[in-house]
Amino acid sequence: MTLTESALAALIARAFERHGMSAPNAGLVAAVVAAAERDGAASHGLLRLDGYIATLRSGWVDGRAVPVVTQPAPSILAVNAANGFAQVALAAVRDQATATARSQGLAAVCVSDSHHFAALWPDIEPFAEQGLIALTMVNARGRIVVWGGKRKVLGTNPMAFACPRSDGPPVVWDQASSLRAQGEVLKARVEGRSVPEGIGLDAAGAPTTDPAAILDGGALLPFGGHKGAGIAFMVEVLAAALTGGRFGFQDDSPSFPGAQTSRAGQFLLLIDPARGPGGDVPGRIAALVGVLREAGAQRMPGDERHHRRALALRDGIAIPAAIHAKLLALAGEE
Amino acid sequence: MTLTESALAALIARAFERHGMSAPNAGLVAAVVAAAERDGAASHGLLRLDGYIATLRSGWVDGRAVPVVTQPAPSILAVNAANGFAQVALAAVRDQATATARSQGLAAVCVSDSHHFAALWPDIEPFAEQGLIALTMVNARGRIVVWGGKRKVLGTNPMAFACPRSDGPPVVWDQASSLRAQGEVLKARVEGRSVPEGIGLDAAGAPTTDPAAILDGGALLPFGGHKGAGIAFMVEVLAAALTGGRFGFQDDSPSFPGAQTSRAGQFLLLIDPARGPGGDVPGRIAALVGVLREAGAQRMPGDERHHRRALALRDGIAIPAAIHAKLLALAGEE
Repeated sequence: MTLTESALAALIARAFERHGMSAPNAGLVAAVVAAAERDGAASHGLLRLDGYIATLRSGWVDGRAVPVVTQPAPSILAVNAANGFAQVALAAVRDQATATARSQGLAAVCVSDSHHFAALWPDIEPFAEQGLIALTMVNARGRIVVWGGKRKVLGTNPMAFACPRSDGPPVVWDQASSLRAQGEVLKARVEGRSVPEGIGLDAAGAPTTDPAAILDGGALLPFGGHKGAGIAFMVEVLAAALTGGRFGFQDDSPSFPGAQTSRAGQFLLLIDPARGPGGDVPGRIAALVGVLREAGAQRMPGDERHHRRALALRDGIAIPAAIHAKLLALAGEE
Repeated sequence: MTLTESALAALIARAFERHGMSAPNAGLVAAVVAAAERDGAASHGLLRLDGYIATLRSGWVDGRAVPVVTQPAPSILAVNAANGFAQVALAAVRDQATATARSQGLAAVCVSDSHHFAALWPDIEPFAEQGLIALTMVNARGRIVVWGGKRKVLGTNPMAFACPRSDGPPVVWDQASSLRAQGEVLKARVEGRSVPEGIGLDAAGAPTTDPAAILDGGALLPFGGHKGAGIAFMVEVLAAALTGGRFGFQDDSPSFPGAQTSRAGQFLLLIDPARGPGGDVPGRIAALVGVLREAGAQRMPGDERHHRRALALRDGIAIPAAIHAKLLALAGEE
């Protein structure tokens, strides 16, 4: 099956609506799932569908949540996501956040009580397309061990950065603070493979290459050793402590069988480079990227996604027949 | 020899003054050298003395620079460091930056045309001691290869983060974007040792363990592969493109024999957590640190520095006699 992005998003939204989401919320979350599929970011595309549905069924997340936006300081916006999905909270504050960044030069958005089950790049790429620099961080249930610890406390705590350039789409990166994604370890377990050394520890805090030992009471390790640990800690402070969101170690999702999301927080910083002292910042970033390419950088972050996006816009998004049938069934349309 | 921190700082300042720095500038830069020595952060302490003096002698940096502060937007402050040291620029904007963060919730400081030859933690720890969260980044002359490139473009581009906690000194980390510091590779060359695999490339872009090959036209690699590369790129964008500072690849220090600093930029973000929605943020951070310690984290970033600082405050700072004699000679006091 080949669908357009909007047709795919609409079908996903109908499936979400049938499982407890309000129509506007379903549309917002479905859009990021379809965008990931469109960009070939499979791990955050339709592969997540079962996780969304199971989490909605568990009662752990409120698919009908109505976020509440406040502005506690001239440059700080706060969104209580009301136990809903983070994309809904972000949509509620997007225009005000953009306007604040343009008037103040900076804006910070502090989202609390939110569930983020998607990639982060869809949150920030649109800001960079409008000329803003954006940095975002999401904390999550404890999965990694840091600074020589034995038990997991911090989440895989992803961070993403986007900046505009004058001669192309924004440069956007999006990366977890763990060396490898939890999903890779899950896949290795299913396939009966071991994982490389240095990825994780077992329940006793000892290094292991057994995916089951990592998943059953063990932990993942941060990328780059203590440096990645520093990043993961910063994410926990900004996305949870600062926002009033729950820490990853406060996770109580096990009381909701099937729940796969973290109830946590998100931090978003927007900078309007046109209000800073740097002059033509998108032009300077284009020059920087040009020098990196001349020096042999094979691809910039986001290049592959933009390539696949162009193909999807031309040819549509190919969906395996079985997945399409499943989507129709979830939407009650089979 | 054992000196108090203030006596050591004053002696270093006199040496700097004798080599072309104005008295206030010398005091500011000397204070961070003495603080590094006090905290046992040797690589940024008196070991840097020769580099400072050689750079001043070369005419590459202006030791008498008078920075110019402007406020292009309500939450953005800009400092033109006028080809002087970054610590002087930061001192010129410190009070206004703190006041802006408290009134707006956030402040960004964009420093351009500056030389940063010190650690970053002394820049931000004082803000966290006053209850602010601080994040800073400095770009530097090209030294690392990213994203599969063959030639160095980005600098070792350090980043540092500081946050207050209710039950102890701030948690502060400070880390380069390279896997290892340039100084470590220099030391290995002097000692005739090879360096571990994965640290650097030779001039042809091939992996090497020969420190000379890394230093002579080769490059360092980022920590954590493409993830550390993402961090280094973000630092280049925020510290240079946004501030109007020079990119690392625009380095022209070779025209000034002896010059060891980078003429670049610095980005500093301040957040006043008391203006955000998080409630008692320093208390929540203390709780987070407590959980990390319970999980076995052997030490938090900054612990070792604070331990050594307490000893230095009690016992003074021990300086080898030869170094003390050299300092006296540089200050014209032998």
